[in-house]
Amino acid sequence: MMRHDGRTPQEIRPVRFERGFAAASAGSVLVRSGSTVILVTANLVDQVPPFLEGRGTGWLTAEYAMLPGSTPSRKPRKVDGRCTEIQRLIGRSLRAMVDLERLGPRTLHLDADVIQADGGTRTAAITAACVATADALNKCLGAEEARAILKGRLAAVSVGVVDGVGLLDLDYSEDVRAEVDLNVVRLGPRGLVEVQGTAEGAPFDRRRLEELLDLADQGIDRLMALQLDAVGPGVFPPEE
Amino acid sequence: MMRHDGRTPQEIRPVRFERGFAAASAGSVLVRSGSTVILVTANLVDQVPPFLEGRGTGWLTAEYAMLPGSTPSRKPRKVDGRCTEIQRLIGRSLRAMVDLERLGPRTLHLDADVIQADGGTRTAAITAACVATADALNKCLGAEEARAILKGRLAAVSVGVVDGVGLLDLDYSEDVRAEVDLNVVRLGPRGLVEVQGTAEGAPFDRRRLEELLDLADQGIDRLMALQLDAVGPGVFPPEE
Amino acid sequence: MMRHDGRTPQEIRPVRFERGFAAASAGSVLVRSGSTVILVTANLVDQVPPFLEGRGTGWLTAEYAMLPGSTPSRKPRKVDGRCTEIQRLIGRSLRAMVDLERLGPRTLHLDADVIQADGGTRTAAITAACVATADALNKCLGAEEARAILKGRLAAVSVGVVDGVGLLDLDYSEDVRAEVDLNVVRLGPRGLVEVQGTAEGAPFDRRRLEELLDLADQGIDRLMALQLDAVGPGVFPPEE
Amino acid sequence: MMRHDGRTPQEIRPVRFERGFAAASAGSVLVRSGSTVILVTANLVDQVPPFLEGRGTGWLTAEYAMLPGSTPSRKPRKVDGRCTEIQRLIGRSLRAMVDLERLGPRTLHLDADVIQADGGTRTAAITAACVATADALNKCLGAEEARAILKGRLAAVSVGVVDGVGLLDLDYSEDVRAEVDLNVVRLGPRGLVEVQGTAEGAPFDRRRLEELLDLADQGIDRLMALQLDAVGPGVFPPEE
Amino acid sequence: MMRHDGRTPQEIRPVRFERGFAAASAGSVLVRSGSTVILVTANLVDQVPPFLEGRGTGWLTAEYAMLPGSTPSRKPRKVDGRCTEIQRLIGRSLRAMVDLERLGPRTLHLDADVIQADGGTRTAAITAACVATADALNKCLGAEEARAILKGRLAAVSVGVVDGVGLLDLDYSEDVRAEVDLNVVRLGPRGLVEVQGTAEGAPFDRRRLEELLDLADQGIDRLMALQLDAVGPGVFPPEE
Amino acid sequence: MMRHDGRTPQEIRPVRFERGFAAASAGSVLVRSGSTVILVTANLVDQVPPFLEGRGTGWLTAEYAMLPGSTPSRKPRKVDGRCTEIQRLIGRSLRAMVDLERLGPRTLHLDADVIQADGGTRTAAITAACVATADALNKCLGAEEARAILKGRLAAVSVGVVDGVGLLDLDYSEDVRAEVDLNVVRLGPRGLVEVQGTAEGAPFDRRRLEELLDLADQGIDRLMALQLDAVGPGVFPPEE
Repeated sequence: MMRHDGRTPQEIRPVRFERGFAAASAGSVLVRSGSTVILVTANLVDQVPPFLEGRGTGWLTAEYAMLPGSTPSRKPRKVDGRCTEIQRLIGRSLRAMVDLERLGPRTLHLDADVIQADGGTRTAAITAACVATADALNKCLGAEEARAILKGRLAAVSVGVVDGVGLLDLDYSEDVRAEVDLNVVRLGPRGLVEVQGTAEGAPFDRRRLEELLDLADQGIDRLMALQLDAVGPGVFPPEE
Repeated sequence: MMRHDGRTPQEIRPVRFERGFAAASAGSVLVRSGSTVILVTANLVDQVPPFLEGRGTGWLTAEYAMLPGSTPSRKPRKVDGRCTEIQRLIGRSLRAMVDLERLGPRTLHLDADVIQADGGTRTAAITAACVATADALNKCLGAEEARAILKGRLAAVSVGVVDGVGLLDLDYSEDVRAEVDLNVVRLGPRGLVEVQGTAEGAPFDRRRLEELLDLADQGIDRLMALQLDAVGPGVFPPEE
Repeated sequence: MMRHDGRTPQEIRPVRFERGFAAASAGSVLVRSGSTVILVTANLVDQVPPFLEGRGTGWLTAEYAMLPGSTPSRKPRKVDGRCTEIQRLIGRSLRAMVDLERLGPRTLHLDADVIQADGGTRTAAITAACVATADALNKCLGAEEARAILKGRLAAVSVGVVDGVGLLDLDYSEDVRAEVDLNVVRLGPRGLVEVQGTAEGAPFDRRRLEELLDLADQGIDRLMALQLDAVGPGVFPPEE
Repeated sequence: MMRHDGRTPQEIRPVRFERGFAAASAGSVLVRSGSTVILVTANLVDQVPPFLEGRGTGWLTAEYAMLPGSTPSRKPRKVDGRCTEIQRLIGRSLRAMVDLERLGPRTLHLDADVIQADGGTRTAAITAACVATADALNKCLGAEEARAILKGRLAAVSVGVVDGVGLLDLDYSEDVRAEVDLNVVRLGPRGLVEVQGTAEGAPFDRRRLEELLDLADQGIDRLMALQLDAVGPGVFPPEE
Repeated sequence: MMRHDGRTPQEIRPVRFERGFAAASAGSVLVRSGSTVILVTANLVDQVPPFLEGRGTGWLTAEYAMLPGSTPSRKPRKVDGRCTEIQRLIGRSLRAMVDLERLGPRTLHLDADVIQADGGTRTAAITAACVATADALNKCLGAEEARAILKGRLAAVSVGVVDGVGLLDLDYSEDVRAEVDLNVVRLGPRGLVEVQGTAEGAPFDRRRLEELLDLADQGIDRLMALQLDAVGPGVFPPEE
Repeated sequence: MMRHDGRTPQEIRPVRFERGFAAASAGSVLVRSGSTVILVTANLVDQVPPFLEGRGTGWLTAEYAMLPGSTPSRKPRKVDGRCTEIQRLIGRSLRAMVDLERLGPRTLHLDADVIQADGGTRTAAITAACVATADALNKCLGAEEARAILKGRLAAVSVGVVDGVGLLDLDYSEDVRAEVDLNVVRLGPRGLVEVQGTAEGAPFDRRRLEELLDLADQGIDRLMALQLDAVGPGVFPPEE
């Protein structure tokens, strides 16, 4: 079976990371995943939110927004429920790859701004944020300190069921028709960090969930290889 | 192994549904799950949101709030990110048990207000909302019409890993210590509607996910039996 | 003359106080006055608002809200002008029964959430808040300290004129037809704390005001007796 | 007994009405009551709020604000609880002097902006709004129509108890020391429209309330005479 | 050529300054420029905004609002884009006439509230604010200190092109027809502080700009003479 | 004299326009002016704001925001006063190059999002918006219609005085030290659309204003040449 853009069901879209795109930020990555384009910036500040003051530990938080021109019909600027949900997902996910104790009393701010939206923005943002985070920590704290804080590589992908077939990395035209939508965030080769499956049409059974998780693992393996290409060796701790 | 309140790992808390607690609403259920107490009301209005106008189909939407006195340290009234995430989850879940086409140009409003919070409020709210929805449709549209609109029973439960052990239906004291937190929403005997797993501490692997899904299935089976006791036969369509 | 629910003009609705309904709060009372149902919680925090910092004296503040399902047509969640007015009234009234100097640098937060609205919610909230306040002070500070802080029992009732006849404790169906509406809050046997009379239809004269104040005194006497039944002796200071 | 400004307890402050002060509005009155200075404007629009659409009847609504420079320590611009309470009081009071059915499908907007605050702003605003309303109706609808819509003259005054003595028309220095504060709004010679009494310090008894209402009647009689001087005969219907 | 109100193109409207109109403020000026009426108050507080804390230097900030009754069709109270732009202009302009270092760690708050709007409100507000600022500094800090802080007199005027003719000090009826609109703020005899020219209809060339700047200089000369009449000698430093 | 980056006082920074950067929008331009990087998108919708409904004429509106990562210290997302002022300037300026009558009942939305801020963002946004507007009109309405609507090329530049010397196109390090700041927007070879000069330090005289306007004209000439290179001939009407 061939998808509308020539991909097989098990294939992710072409992905490119452009590091340093917004040079005012300590870390910044423009990620392109097919026609989805997102700018992720990472900045470290010497301050923690009130609930962590005096504890010595750090924090990581994320914001996600779609630029008004990122969709064919202009999208008004506002933080709606979907945005809130996504930025909480990005924050939780990225905190899983950072040792907040070692980070010390600092906050890493991640900002993901969607420049062009064609499906999979939340997972592409997470995958790019992994790179931006590593870059920001390296720039601000040096390579050794950064390596001690980073727990491993983190990547995310969406999978779904369209016309009864499990597909890896849905674009927008596939996403709107999907019966099931599953986002998976993984740390390193096996560590699930977030699994969010939603029945958009009919409910799905356990067997289908297994199949989709298999597909997600394939996609994330591929994305992690591309991250390594982009970042080079020595940034993340070696994996089993 | 015995839990702090005497439960086994595979045991849910005692659950009680008090229907008609807020008699001004078409459907209303006060649910008690251990020390968690939530009021869910359901009201039907002859109107749909703008994006559905003229389409003939209906809508279901949910709001979730914690009353200020529901936690030991008073909780200020405001819709924060967690609230937004939960009310979106409740809405998506409940839409899976309602045939919106058959509902016609009406909106069912669900409101879940937490009176006492001791963990598992989002899943208890969903389980109670299933009953409140059935009651509201019966009252407003009659038994026959309601039965045609309802797709089946819906229930939800949380499972988690504490000290390396998978536990069903975590209360607050367990939840704050959980390494993994998984919420599962199911329609009927096998239909997964939402699967939301989060690594709070260390990531989890596929095998652990399977174990937790098994536990969740046991809990939901038990909750559905209690729903049937509360609602009586003939409200929901028969299940396989 | 007999009212639509069988009461005489001088009769209040049946009232029941359920203490400890929201056990996470230091004080909590579910009050039912006829079909009006309100949850009032009371919580003490070791902090005062900025304008009292460093003065050694305490504060008491109140919030009032109607749950969306508390009225036949769902009521959107928002703090409108009526809400603001009512919560200010509750706060002012309850401050009259508490010795704020003796309370010390603490704030007592009262939250009144209407579960079912059938008229008289502001006065029922005040009458219940008296009990919740006493319970919270007893629980947090002990019986002796609480007794020193409490100035006496506080209760409130509404009276009105319908079809030219003065009626005690109007329910909603009476309230919407009332020509005059008067809310009275009293501390102990004779101490007026708030008198708020409004001409809804035609203005009223001094003689009518006297008649309504007489009715209110009867109603408050009855409510204070019920409060005493609920709380037991020894909580409030003895009255003349 | 003599007050700090030389008044007797039964004396109001000197009052002056400057009509037409904000000539862009249909009605506008700058009222000076001692050092309290308020601008009230009245404007009529051919529209009613949604809840009255299609009913043929009109509406009157009011807003109240303090200019930042109206108090010795600059007051930030915002609608706080006190503002909300006052503007609702002004609106309710003024609606009592207007026949909304005869007004037809129009809304009269009243805006009271305090230029200098020295106590008694809400009552001075109401007394001035009576004049501004009459002026706006005359200008927009003509004298005959205006006379048919106006039910009579409306005026308001505050009374209070300071050091155990009942005083008419408190200024700010008296108001902050008052044990009891009572605002009375009256239509014509005898018609009570609003009676709002609050115990600021100790509660008050029925006898004290009577005394204060007597004082208020004297003050309002005087204010109504001044209104008549300002407006001239023939605007308001003759009183008994 | 004669304008609709009898003025020549080079003539400003009659201007009157009423000082001390809002006596609760340290400085207050009611300015009338033709039918435009604005109240400007000035208040000094012993505090600076966070970005200046610990620097020893002071600040000046301004707010601008139109009262709802200031225009023929009632204007809702809200800070729209135009308001924001104007209050920033007033603040920047007035900061040019004050030596913020000498002011010390204090903030001067200016509030301009439009009572009647007939064009030229932003420039009239600036011209009046110059007087209110001088008055507030004199009252709070004494004449000597005030004179050391004030850099000179500041005045502003609008000029425009209507039907191809350059006009000084446009009123509203001229302003809505203007092809070009230019606001000029000047300190002392020659010091431009703000020049804001906008093509409302067709663009304008350099020659036209010169002509309009000449007109503005004439108007500001006249306004500064009137300021001097109002304030008297010795307040502002002598000019070349 | 040589500037810190090697430019002469009369030299603008290198400018590059990347068209189609956000392909979901009808027009989109990524402009780089030295280290300043801005994305401008243009989208046309078949709707006009309420104040233009039924008039047949069109509208153009703009929003301006800085991405949080666009400055070295992360900038919180919010529309502050500066933003408001800039987006109003962009909107007014661009409306000068579009024949709104010919546009018909449509709104052109411009969104300028700053990716990297190094001074001159408002002027770079305007210069890029000219290109994005032309591209959007061409794409949505065709070349002929677009040419009829466009009145000419529009470009903007900032000039300023640093250490007494007039400089063209200030970058951030120059801008913070500037005594005078002037932004000029021009349509075609001679048509001034906006002239906004501000004295940041000492006031400036008419002679200095002349000198800065000369500099601005040189810069805009250069920018218009670069726009033509980017867009090609035939898009804008020929200029004198």
